[in-house]
Amino acid sequence: MHYNLALIGFGNVARALARLLLREQDLLQSQYDITFSFTGISTGRHGCAVNPNGLDIDKALELAENGQSVFPLSSFPVQDSLAVIQHSQANVMFENSPVNKQTGQPAIDHIRLALNLGMHAITANKGPVVHGYRELSALAKAKGKVFGFESTVLGGAPVFSVFRETFPLAELISFRGILNATTNIILSRMENGESYEDAVKYCQSVGVAETDPDNDVDGWDAAIKVAALITVLMDTPFTPQHVEPTGIRGITPEMIAKAKAEGKRYKLVCSAEKAGGRVRASVEPELVDASSPLYGMMNSSTGVTLCTDVLPDYSITVSEREGMAGGPVETAYGLFADFISAVSHSR
Amino acid sequence: MHYNLALIGFGNVARALARLLLREQDLLQSQYDITFSFTGISTGRHGCAVNPNGLDIDKALELAENGQSVFPLSSFPVQDSLAVIQHSQANVMFENSPVNKQTGQPAIDHIRLALNLGMHAITANKGPVVHGYRELSALAKAKGKVFGFESTVLGGAPVFSVFRETFPLAELISFRGILNATTNIILSRMENGESYEDAVKYCQSVGVAETDPDNDVDGWDAAIKVAALITVLMDTPFTPQHVEPTGIRGITPEMIAKAKAEGKRYKLVCSAEKAGGRVRASVEPELVDASSPLYGMMNSSTGVTLCTDVLPDYSITVSEREGMAGGPVETAYGLFADFISAVSHSR
Repeated sequence: MHYNLALIGFGNVARALARLLLREQDLLQSQYDITFSFTGISTGRHGCAVNPNGLDIDKALELAENGQSVFPLSSFPVQDSLAVIQHSQANVMFENSPVNKQTGQPAIDHIRLALNLGMHAITANKGPVVHGYRELSALAKAKGKVFGFESTVLGGAPVFSVFRETFPLAELISFRGILNATTNIILSRMENGESYEDAVKYCQSVGVAETDPDNDVDGWDAAIKVAALITVLMDTPFTPQHVEPTGIRGITPEMIAKAKAEGKRYKLVCSAEKAGGRVRASVEPELVDASSPLYGMMNSSTGVTLCTDVLPDYSITVSEREGMAGGPVETAYGLFADFISAVSHSR
Repeated sequence: MHYNLALIGFGNVARALARLLLREQDLLQSQYDITFSFTGISTGRHGCAVNPNGLDIDKALELAENGQSVFPLSSFPVQDSLAVIQHSQANVMFENSPVNKQTGQPAIDHIRLALNLGMHAITANKGPVVHGYRELSALAKAKGKVFGFESTVLGGAPVFSVFRETFPLAELISFRGILNATTNIILSRMENGESYEDAVKYCQSVGVAETDPDNDVDGWDAAIKVAALITVLMDTPFTPQHVEPTGIRGITPEMIAKAKAEGKRYKLVCSAEKAGGRVRASVEPELVDASSPLYGMMNSSTGVTLCTDVLPDYSITVSEREGMAGGPVETAYGLFADFISAVSHSR
């Protein structure tokens, strides 16, 4: 089976995805009977290109990384992301364009159009999950397509698909975990004596924190992930505002030193519980000791414990290993897994 | 879709499965379009029964639990498990009969016959995985059926399906974990001052350890699970004998007290690594400190870290929660999940 692919957004993650697909193309064909072409690309600042017969993806990667427009690769003029989706004749649309966290736009519009045109729609953006899940998943179902978003919560590592594929008829009663890497790195480095400011700078220097770290340190990134998990796995619409997160700004070096002396640590803990048809959720710093599974999760480690009605507590933890730190390459793997799952289950 | 089910072995796990299926039958129908009948039952000491039109399962449960034969429920005479499989007209065979750990028999014969007759074959027995995986999985594939064994390693919690369904094209480079609950409970209780003998008795009293605890305390149960993971997820035939396990008999109360004073703990660590086409594996006690993810895994907690070529280290941990301790009910859930997965993917 041959699939035309459209890349809406062509930043680090989308380019890592393109490289991963190219590297795995022989195995995709031999093990999954999947071949593919790229038929549409929309970049933030380097134009758009469409060719339903297949774009030269190597050239597109080269142009984008040299800061040049991909437009010369296009077989006809095309202005924006919606036009790329419209004219790409794609079977699968990957949405990784910059997103407004308050509204989920323009990702929601891109995904809606792709699904309406009969494409699978796969994103690493949390916005459309938090702000558009019910509409987009219902639309996907009506069209017999998949709305995939595995990369949104644990940076490419599976959590949604684990619950949905391997826990049939289970009810998620509660969950608890650490979902934001930046704050966990900051707290880990402060425990080793580094100042808050230097720890933030370190996170920015390795590309984990954005130029404006507020979204991480004030707990909003964690709250968005909590809202996404609740919305999807507890089937309850929930926004980050419902979470009312507390971040880590109030945690002083003195507090961390005192905790350390007592064999304890501060962690930015995410939790949610469904009871009586209502969900309560929080993101806030907690003091944990060595008996907590969160105690040993240091630096960029993240993870979540799923409490269901069918099994003992089931925890998923993703921890840094040399050369594997949860960057764009790992996020791209989540998109790749969504792609294979979508086309395998739709045949 | 209607499925006829045969239960080969009708002990605690199989009976818990029957109850789970009965309890979930409305949701199975509404969410998965699955209806079912039990058409064959083979017990260890209470006879066999077959009725292709459906057996009275409530009556069968009652008879077996009162120590009475299920034979009166049979619509015609049937002597043994192979005859039950042969005449049940089942679509799915659940194999949970007592197994010879050295050979995987008679489970392998049961599964082979079921697959040859066009049934899915699902088991909680490790023996047929360790001793028959290549043959039985190839046979299942040739017949377009599923050989399912999710319940064999983490007591009903998903690990095989997580890797196979949510890690497409990933290579498992190594894994490391705690796979035997009995030894972990013993070591945890000894740390609290209980004697080895009393800790073993405790495990027997709660049904975790068998009357003869050698299989657990000498590391063989862990070695069998290591062999199953290697055989399936590293696609390399491997036996428990290849692991040459070391158990926990050599760990004295003095060693545990000394470790505790130093902030350390002994754990029976399972590990395997694939390099240069060869797999090396071990099961042996290791001293771990609080920086190890194994340090916090106490009592009946088990888990495994999967090291792949595509993501940071991915750990699955299953930890005791009140009323959910990893007994027959949880093992039955793994069989139930295998059943839904098998029939959903085969339509």
